[in-house]
Amino acid sequence: MNDDMLTASAVKADPEKWPFTPHVISLETSIIREILKISSKPGVISLAGGYPSPEMFPLEDLKQSAIDVIDEFQSASAQYSFSMGIPVLREAIAERETKLGAPTKTENILITSGSQQGIELCARAFIDPGEYIITEYPTYVGALQAFDFYQAQYAMVDMDQDGMLVDQVEDAIKKYKPKLIYTVSTFQNPTGITMSEERKRALVEIAVKYGIPIVDDNPYGELRFAGEHVATMKDVGGDAVISLGTFSKIIAPGLRVGWMNCSDKIIALFEKVKQCADLHANTFTQYMIYNYVRSGKLAAHIPEIIENYGAKRNLMLKEMDKHFPAGLSWTKPEGGLFLWIELPKSMSASELLPKAIEEKVTYVYGHPFFPDGKGDNTMRLNFSNASHEQISLAIERLGKVLKENMP
Amino acid sequence: MNDDMLTASAVKADPEKWPFTPHVISLETSIIREILKISSKPGVISLAGGYPSPEMFPLEDLKQSAIDVIDEFQSASAQYSFSMGIPVLREAIAERETKLGAPTKTENILITSGSQQGIELCARAFIDPGEYIITEYPTYVGALQAFDFYQAQYAMVDMDQDGMLVDQVEDAIKKYKPKLIYTVSTFQNPTGITMSEERKRALVEIAVKYGIPIVDDNPYGELRFAGEHVATMKDVGGDAVISLGTFSKIIAPGLRVGWMNCSDKIIALFEKVKQCADLHANTFTQYMIYNYVRSGKLAAHIPEIIENYGAKRNLMLKEMDKHFPAGLSWTKPEGGLFLWIELPKSMSASELLPKAIEEKVTYVYGHPFFPDGKGDNTMRLNFSNASHEQISLAIERLGKVLKENMP
Repeated sequence: MNDDMLTASAVKADPEKWPFTPHVISLETSIIREILKISSKPGVISLAGGYPSPEMFPLEDLKQSAIDVIDEFQSASAQYSFSMGIPVLREAIAERETKLGAPTKTENILITSGSQQGIELCARAFIDPGEYIITEYPTYVGALQAFDFYQAQYAMVDMDQDGMLVDQVEDAIKKYKPKLIYTVSTFQNPTGITMSEERKRALVEIAVKYGIPIVDDNPYGELRFAGEHVATMKDVGGDAVISLGTFSKIIAPGLRVGWMNCSDKIIALFEKVKQCADLHANTFTQYMIYNYVRSGKLAAHIPEIIENYGAKRNLMLKEMDKHFPAGLSWTKPEGGLFLWIELPKSMSASELLPKAIEEKVTYVYGHPFFPDGKGDNTMRLNFSNASHEQISLAIERLGKVLKENMP
Repeated sequence: MNDDMLTASAVKADPEKWPFTPHVISLETSIIREILKISSKPGVISLAGGYPSPEMFPLEDLKQSAIDVIDEFQSASAQYSFSMGIPVLREAIAERETKLGAPTKTENILITSGSQQGIELCARAFIDPGEYIITEYPTYVGALQAFDFYQAQYAMVDMDQDGMLVDQVEDAIKKYKPKLIYTVSTFQNPTGITMSEERKRALVEIAVKYGIPIVDDNPYGELRFAGEHVATMKDVGGDAVISLGTFSKIIAPGLRVGWMNCSDKIIALFEKVKQCADLHANTFTQYMIYNYVRSGKLAAHIPEIIENYGAKRNLMLKEMDKHFPAGLSWTKPEGGLFLWIELPKSMSASELLPKAIEEKVTYVYGHPFFPDGKGDNTMRLNFSNASHEQISLAIERLGKVLKENMP
């Protein structure tokens, strides 16, 4: 055998011709992540991402947590651990969930690599190609991306200011035989709308009647800065609901720790699916978060986030009133990270984006949040990540672009 | 509506009747992880897991890394980041791969949540239900678990002391039309065997001829404590190979950072698949590892691990010679974490395990490593995790059980 012929550089491989599965080749990259790349250019103010406010990360406390965790847990903090997650954190999460209104035991909690993985695990557990999922219309684009991989189809249910129009759900179930109902029922991404308790109860009744799960994606639930508390889907639905939580918005997303709260009768099944995917969540950051929660610092920190985001949301609404032209409408969320704008039907938020980028401001146009690709006259604005100065400047710039392009 | 009827506790949900996908219900939990639960009982010495030695974790350096990372990178160390991984770590890995023998650019590296996720991403990208994967016989059980989720079938290729019998591969490709070739070609899990360079070159030639990828799972490659260096599959195969690496065995597995090294022509496709799964790997531990690698401490640490594991491997082989009955054969690996024992054909390593547990020693019986479930007369022993004292005691105990049960 002639080695010269066979050195790596001489190997005539053609990876582009490898037999990838067709549905992987057809996958689309996240449009948000593409916009974020543009947003990182100097001088551009981004209202695009769902990023928490960097000044809200408790960096010094996290540093102390990392030190304490290694001192206290030693090699266990760096070793392989359980696919279900480390028991002390699962117990701490169960206690928090119970305090927040949903009676929860340690056995109900599976730690995930962010709540995005919780969505992914549900897709894996329920969806075969062509099967249906009931979603709000619009809904979280990252969930659609996870579901699309499994070639899911969507039964889309309209929303109003009280969330999903639940009276449309039963017909959708009869027509499409969906495998699950996916909802972001509190401070929804992208609209910021919260489903009323009455609607939640009605949705639970229907889900139980037809024997399908409600997956309640709830990353923002603790971040209410206006209005009255509304019971969560898990509070009212119990075992009828798989709820997905995360520390991304109340501590820091880079630690990639979320959780699934579901019936202990079926959680072992999700444990197996999690095992196949990545063995277990990050041991070290699970311990860091456990230490931070146990210290009581998280409980003290959340009100600071709420105050910070509430002030930014108020500022953004004030600046929008000042700078946006007539003919637009937008939501006034009582919590979370986003608000949602409707432009005149004839306008295209995606065609507008390059003009906004010229003015050094970015947002996410709305159509990727609609499973059928409609809704191009909508856009999502994030108010958590930018500073007050940036928000004022960004809305002024965006207002200019909007005015110049009104029909 | 009567609220009392609708409190969570009153909701009559029956999650066990939810419409899970059939192939998820049929998934089996990892037998290794079940054995590990038994192994954690007091007094039991485990030779079962693939756990690195806890005394080899550079805990003080990792603590300093966590501090330095927050001081230097501030909020960026805790924020969302790129699905491809943080650029500085990707660049550092590319430099290491190049030094180790495979010319690599930053664009070739995708950071994964441990190399288990690398296996999972390859399964996702290539396998539709019923399609074939070529594997060594036996092969890594965790890979089979990841592939099984996608309902893969296996074309199994026998091994000898030089690894996969590559002259069987071309016929297997013609017969089964496999989508990929999966190999642990260096210090294989479970056998500890390394494929010869000549076989690797021959396998690359075949893979290129038939246009299918070689996925080379290489978590132990840097841990050679005996014999001569052998070029890796990536070294000889270049773009014909997707190689999977991890810091789990050279720093710590709990940080969950691995990588995929593949052609930049197709890596964007894996980026999309990674995005669907969990957005991106852990930002904080990626920075911790980057800081540790950049400091030069990793390069200084690896020889310490090699010395530690080499001594344990030598001790285990010595004790086996002393305590094991005639009629057994085992591999003498030149690196990695495992050695592999063949019992007389009539013996069952799985039936022997309860007796071993009575003697307070555990191992992993071999049949889960065989896609066809055969090989019950084999067992895998790990020599990295236990202490010298534990290894001597464990092999003595196991020798007693073996002697009492020889045919």
